Amino acid sequence: MTNNTPSKKTAMRTHTCGELTAANAGQTVTLCGWNDSKRNHGGVLFINLRDLYGITQVVAAPDSPVFKTAEEAKSEYVLRVTGTVRPRPGTNANKNMPTGEIELEAAEITVLNTSQPLPFDLGAHAGVNEDTRLKYRYLDLRRPQVAKNLVLRGRIANVVRTYLNRLDFNEIETPMLTKSTPEGARDFVVPSRNNPGTFYALPQSPQVFKQILMISGMDRYFQLARAMRDEDLRADRQPEHTQIDLEMSYVDEHDVARVVEGLMGEIFASIGETVTAPFPEMEFSDVMLRYGSDKPDLRYALEIKDCSSVFKTSGFKVFSEALAGGGAVRGLKGAGGAAFSRGDMDKLTELVKKAGAKGLVWLRYKDGKWESPTLKFITDAEQAALKDLFEMAEGDALFLAADKPAVIAPALGALRSELVARLKPAQIKKWAFLWVRHFPLLEKDAESGNWTFTHNPFTAPLPEDIPKLDTDPGAVLSAQYDLVLNGVELGSGSVRNHSRAMQEKIFGLMGYNAEQIQRRFGMIVNALDYGAPPHGGIGMGFDRLIGIICGTDSIRDVIAFPKTTSGACLMTDAPSTLDEKQLKELHLKIIE
Amino acid sequence: MTNNTPSKKTAMRTHTCGELTAANAGQTVTLCGWNDSKRNHGGVLFINLRDLYGITQVVAAPDSPVFKTAEEAKSEYVLRVTGTVRPRPGTNANKNMPTGEIELEAAEITVLNTSQPLPFDLGAHAGVNEDTRLKYRYLDLRRPQVAKNLVLRGRIANVVRTYLNRLDFNEIETPMLTKSTPEGARDFVVPSRNNPGTFYALPQSPQVFKQILMISGMDRYFQLARAMRDEDLRADRQPEHTQIDLEMSYVDEHDVARVVEGLMGEIFASIGETVTAPFPEMEFSDVMLRYGSDKPDLRYALEIKDCSSVFKTSGFKVFSEALAGGGAVRGLKGAGGAAFSRGDMDKLTELVKKAGAKGLVWLRYKDGKWESPTLKFITDAEQAALKDLFEMAEGDALFLAADKPAVIAPALGALRSELVARLKPAQIKKWAFLWVRHFPLLEKDAESGNWTFTHNPFTAPLPEDIPKLDTDPGAVLSAQYDLVLNGVELGSGSVRNHSRAMQEKIFGLMGYNAEQIQRRFGMIVNALDYGAPPHGGIGMGFDRLIGIICGTDSIRDVIAFPKTTSGACLMTDAPSTLDEKQLKELHLKIIE
Repeated sequence: MTNNTPSKKTAMRTHTCGELTAANAGQTVTLCGWNDSKRNHGGVLFINLRDLYGITQVVAAPDSPVFKTAEEAKSEYVLRVTGTVRPRPGTNANKNMPTGEIELEAAEITVLNTSQPLPFDLGAHAGVNEDTRLKYRYLDLRRPQVAKNLVLRGRIANVVRTYLNRLDFNEIETPMLTKSTPEGARDFVVPSRNNPGTFYALPQSPQVFKQILMISGMDRYFQLARAMRDEDLRADRQPEHTQIDLEMSYVDEHDVARVVEGLMGEIFASIGETVTAPFPEMEFSDVMLRYGSDKPDLRYALEIKDCSSVFKTSGFKVFSEALAGGGAVRGLKGAGGAAFSRGDMDKLTELVKKAGAKGLVWLRYKDGKWESPTLKFITDAEQAALKDLFEMAEGDALFLAADKPAVIAPALGALRSELVARLKPAQIKKWAFLWVRHFPLLEKDAESGNWTFTHNPFTAPLPEDIPKLDTDPGAVLSAQYDLVLNGVELGSGSVRNHSRAMQEKIFGLMGYNAEQIQRRFGMIVNALDYGAPPHGGIGMGFDRLIGIICGTDSIRDVIAFPKTTSGACLMTDAPSTLDEKQLKELHLKIIE
Repeated sequence: MTNNTPSKKTAMRTHTCGELTAANAGQTVTLCGWNDSKRNHGGVLFINLRDLYGITQVVAAPDSPVFKTAEEAKSEYVLRVTGTVRPRPGTNANKNMPTGEIELEAAEITVLNTSQPLPFDLGAHAGVNEDTRLKYRYLDLRRPQVAKNLVLRGRIANVVRTYLNRLDFNEIETPMLTKSTPEGARDFVVPSRNNPGTFYALPQSPQVFKQILMISGMDRYFQLARAMRDEDLRADRQPEHTQIDLEMSYVDEHDVARVVEGLMGEIFASIGETVTAPFPEMEFSDVMLRYGSDKPDLRYALEIKDCSSVFKTSGFKVFSEALAGGGAVRGLKGAGGAAFSRGDMDKLTELVKKAGAKGLVWLRYKDGKWESPTLKFITDAEQAALKDLFEMAEGDALFLAADKPAVIAPALGALRSELVARLKPAQIKKWAFLWVRHFPLLEKDAESGNWTFTHNPFTAPLPEDIPKLDTDPGAVLSAQYDLVLNGVELGSGSVRNHSRAMQEKIFGLMGYNAEQIQRRFGMIVNALDYGAPPHGGIGMGFDRLIGIICGTDSIRDVIAFPKTTSGACLMTDAPSTLDEKQLKELHLKIIE
């Protein structure tokens, strides 16, 4: 997209529409591109000729032999123009266009292809229904802002690969047609014609294969891997996505983190941004207390604070009962929040209640004093202590909740996101990376009552917590680390179980007996028995990363051919029906 | 795999097993790896510790505290060894090992993991059944010769991407879940749970999408694309393979060829080999006449020559009748072939008959004269002319066939391959690239009697042949080009139809009516209507290329997790059955 690129000269063109400058004046050149727009200025025709690289102004004088062709060329006709580059007269130069110094005086124009009128105007993004844009994705992609995303995505993929190759990671392709693995979502399946009645599964991630590659001795693996999940419909989910997937032998959590930090450093450097490594690390339990989320957006400083000590002798039942029951009083300041109306405060209260809190105590700090409907329950000394603790300034609001810390956390976390959205606090950094570590290894499955994995069934417990597997499995922390960027979970990784005995013990806790372990996880469990090296890795959402970098809310904007939320491709009409012959060959029948 | 690589130091090791030399003598280091082999030499234990990068000899003296652990470590145990690097005494240095100058005097050995006895010996490749190797692929991949192939594959993928990025090709991912396209083979299909009764198809190639990307204005696209074909069982076919796929706008055949030649130059340079560009180009009709194959192995000079003129007045009915009927007499010399016995000659005759010739005339040139059972039918003058024309030398054989050139071609082509195999002629080059161009656009489908595409339904006819589409479609040549390397078809590409009218005309010749065209090819045909630029590209088999470079006959040797010829993965047991619940969710029933 820049001029500093190699020649894209071909048999049909000498230059692209984005590269001619005053330095080319006087040269005879040939360009190819679309008729982006045309105007008649005192009988002279000006055509903006567009390709991926830019726009060049083509001029056809009324007495020129090309005038008629220029006149007849409609919007989006594909033209080949040969002519002489000439500087635009001073006042006509367009400083907003890279090629604005020159224009091309056409001596020859060939219509390479015609075009029907487009179903929508390429310049009018906002007004066009997304379904129409997806149906005609090939036209939607002609819009420079969408094309730019795809170009950038490809460039960043190359940064990723170049970096990991430099670190001697081996790029290894794992199969698309494979066997069902337990990843928490449904597999897409592929009936096998050669083995009737059986199915391949499309991979939800290369997890098992990358561990197998470590057992194979490949030492360092990576892949930009396609992963497919047959999930229920949800906005901004795609049935297939791409992940930066890597795995390393003989590592601890920090070895993986350092590789990822170096990678992010190179990716952001490639777009002219700086990120500082190492990234901050927080324990899961700590991040939940301080931000009420395991993926807090640390571009904003807002932090939940414990103020239980302020209310040790409080007569306010909401606080005293919570404290007596082993709970806490915790608070979040919203700078500028004193401007919230009663109605706003009611909405915020609803929000925290939905997120599990019993209620919300709010206080405004205005004209040097507190105001709140519950102010009468808070003593002067408590008010003064709150002011100091939260460093209240004129116009701020303070929100307090009292309960078990684990209950308060998500409620104040939801409030934190809402305060960021409403109060738009200053960003303390542009790119806020965070490692969240040491999640609980297991949690109770709501349905079965069994223990289940919180992230990945192959994650290792922290060595110091291993004894608790027998006594208090819910308290065992794992060598799991999530990478968060600007409040988005970008990746999830862990040190894995490399011992068969440990892996089987954990499956046992999840309620699998020996036969079930063999049936569902036999391959990996058996492989662990042949000298599996200690290993760990991570998978990071590539679409999400590109989405954040491109500043888009929808990953559809960074995928060449996305599907709708119902999993349909409006351009190709996939999925579609099969004919009877095909179904018969697959030994399948469709039932109601 | 070399020592010139960045540090792979981790929390658990300071070096790899492949990098220590005399320069490290005296250093305290920690290595991790497998116990590759162990021997006891006068009470001292020597362990060859192995990782991906090499082998280092570890020494445990009988009086050392590590001796017991070393003694108990079995084959393929994973060990972590800390110790002092010491030079091996002069006579003990092993020049065949990169680390042969040194050994590691162990001060501490930790068993990181144990191993069951392996089901086969990693050193004994030849004796092991391939099914066993595929079942335990994670052990098979520990064999350095297999691991080396995968490492090289990853490195070459990076060369490909770096080169194409440098030329401003945009790497764009096309969907895995898509709609059936007509590629000549069966699609794998994926039932849609959210849209019961409908199916996605897995892509057989990104052909339609890459053309759509050109219509989208992406100008230059590439991808290392996964392609899946549900083909009938055949040796050395894999249901999924990877292709280097690219497409460019505003190009002719040679623009694509130059990009590919540059790419091959870089790939081969990366393995220390030189290939010379431009590659030779031959017309399809010419290559068939001269080599009897559209993918001749031009490492060998053998060439079919026309000798009809020698036999203009021949009384030999086999020749005279063929010539009278508009046929030709064509011959192939086998240098050293005079050593073939009668029995050999009979076998060669059988071979050419199987390949469609009526028979084979053979002559040996021995002791300065011809010998042949049919010599009596060939006059002295004809014998002399043959000797000159084919430059016969002592010990050569000459093979002649008479018929229509198109009939002779494949027969003598089959003979050519056999002569290469039997006579092992000198290679005139190590890497023989060839462009074969201008295939017939259409051929008669044996079943339907309709015209069908020879390579790709989207290939454009040569402009000068367009008028023949109406008068003699079988004579129309196409802008199709195949890339051949050492007798293997490595890639296939073409300039495409960018005009809707032309594309519809060609589909019409194939027997599709307007409704069928819309149903089967509607998306691409409609897209051509909105200003499709002229474009062309190529797809090249990446597995095949790596196979040739690695010198293996089986692409299974260059794929991490290959399937058997019946499409099964013996390691994961894919494909496998689904449970009833899953089938029900997909609205499917399995029938006989």
